[in-house]
Amino acid sequence: MEITLNDVIKASNTIEGIVNHTPLKLSQTLTEATSKNVWLKLENMQPTGAFKLRGAANAILNLSDADRRKGIITMSTGNHGKAVAYMAKLLNIPAVICVSELVPEVKLKGMRDLGVEVVVTGKDQEQADEGSLRLASERGLTYISAFDDPMVIAGQGTIALEILKERPDTDTIVVPLSGGGLMSGVAMAAKSIKPDINIIGVSMEHGAAMHLSIKAGEIVPVDESYSLADALTGCIPTNNRYTFNMCSKYVDSTHLVSEDQIGRAVAHAFCKERLVLEGGACAPIAYVQNSYANIKGSNIAIICSGDNIDINKTINLYNKYYNN
Amino acid sequence: MEITLNDVIKASNTIEGIVNHTPLKLSQTLTEATSKNVWLKLENMQPTGAFKLRGAANAILNLSDADRRKGIITMSTGNHGKAVAYMAKLLNIPAVICVSELVPEVKLKGMRDLGVEVVVTGKDQEQADEGSLRLASERGLTYISAFDDPMVIAGQGTIALEILKERPDTDTIVVPLSGGGLMSGVAMAAKSIKPDINIIGVSMEHGAAMHLSIKAGEIVPVDESYSLADALTGCIPTNNRYTFNMCSKYVDSTHLVSEDQIGRAVAHAFCKERLVLEGGACAPIAYVQNSYANIKGSNIAIICSGDNIDINKTINLYNKYYNN
Repeated sequence: MEITLNDVIKASNTIEGIVNHTPLKLSQTLTEATSKNVWLKLENMQPTGAFKLRGAANAILNLSDADRRKGIITMSTGNHGKAVAYMAKLLNIPAVICVSELVPEVKLKGMRDLGVEVVVTGKDQEQADEGSLRLASERGLTYISAFDDPMVIAGQGTIALEILKERPDTDTIVVPLSGGGLMSGVAMAAKSIKPDINIIGVSMEHGAAMHLSIKAGEIVPVDESYSLADALTGCIPTNNRYTFNMCSKYVDSTHLVSEDQIGRAVAHAFCKERLVLEGGACAPIAYVQNSYANIKGSNIAIICSGDNIDINKTINLYNKYYNN
Repeated sequence: MEITLNDVIKASNTIEGIVNHTPLKLSQTLTEATSKNVWLKLENMQPTGAFKLRGAANAILNLSDADRRKGIITMSTGNHGKAVAYMAKLLNIPAVICVSELVPEVKLKGMRDLGVEVVVTGKDQEQADEGSLRLASERGLTYISAFDDPMVIAGQGTIALEILKERPDTDTIVVPLSGGGLMSGVAMAAKSIKPDINIIGVSMEHGAAMHLSIKAGEIVPVDESYSLADALTGCIPTNNRYTFNMCSKYVDSTHLVSEDQIGRAVAHAFCKERLVLEGGACAPIAYVQNSYANIKGSNIAIICSGDNIDINKTINLYNKYYNN
């Protein structure tokens, strides 16, 4: 089954009224620094603070009434889990969120505050995912994938519809790249509307699963290590059905940024843009700051994926890079 | 001349494409704390970081070509000046911004970065305003009022159009109250569309010019002293033509919040809402936090007016109220 622009348009109608049309805000500082027009697509303005609500909402709203009543389950590093929890509360259905031990406490709390059961089912994402599938089968719950699901991919693709409706002259979209759910939807939708658009994926230096897999021509395992861009870490399971193929097909190039570059971008977003953004959201900002000369065209949209960061980390990075 | 809903609708068409439709974001923490639905109208998402762009854009776009070419001048505590500077740059016309000595350095820099001439013309706003009128006459520039101007008021009123289009069930709008430009436009437009809507104005405890003037039934002078809500300080000049009458007519009640309450609201916005908001923008948040039981209805919209705050102040308030 191929996911098409039509699925994204359907998703856009399905999630209307639940998911926000987020602002596409001109960054004055990045526009000045790069001599290009740099627009920030502020997905941190979603009710859950991250784009993940788009895909989760589309997947859950497409379930049958019977499946909804039985309940839903997922594994998530945080933002997807929070989105599933938010939808469960909105629709008043039971939900279980499985996480790995690597997930920061601030994200667990965010989910528990939404009233769902949070279960630590493994020491990394791969184990946690296996645990969640086991639990789904034991309890008869529907598993909502964080990224490798047609409904989730179509939901994330609605970001591209909004960007190209508001700024049809966008030349390049720069996207945080992890398991590829966001990227698959955005790249497919954007290329379907405007075939000559340039789509760039950005990940952290260590453990960039999709970047390395695209380069290798097959899914390769990665070590999951600490990164400021914690939302972008983790392996792509080898049973991947959609995102590896879609990213391989639609993405023009992928790039890596260092922890230092991400940290500077977090601090920049905070003190120059007045935005609290998580490390993963700042990886594409870091790429634009450091490599703008290589980016095609004069109108660049950056997808700022979310705001789930420990606020003390934001302050520490600001003190480190700007306040001395 | 009376300013009507029709002027606001015209303004909305005039400023389309230059001024953002800002998000109306559900505050999960305030909704939980108050058991009402609390929506934040995020005017900090304007390109200049504050609602003032709406009024300034409407006033400047309505000037004749000849007047535009000669140039514009204004007096501003910061956000209006930044908006005028932004428009001047966009339209490539000369602009002078007059300020008082009380304006924080971060705001002066914001304006100079936009390429306009900034002149300190007095030790408080009243003196600075007199100085700007003198300079306007000397140089043949058009004076753009920060608040007491029909075009500016109509521009600010477009916020009410957006709120009531997106959430027609809004019961109460809580508005930062200073010279009354924002309040006059919002209150008149909102009451014209929905006569039973409740409009609340909020100012800081010391020097709340419009609050005291409405209570007195005439414009009264106030001492201009330091407040975290620096955007809300300053006298209403006695030659006021529009905003005192409009606020007296359309506002249901006005309230004061303490510096401590404003400080807590700045910290709350930062660490709980992931928003960098200036003190003036947080005065209505502080009122809702402390007095929600007295607010009519179950759907409350708060206008979060801007983000021009020294980031170190935000961090210090967070450390003071939340990080111990």
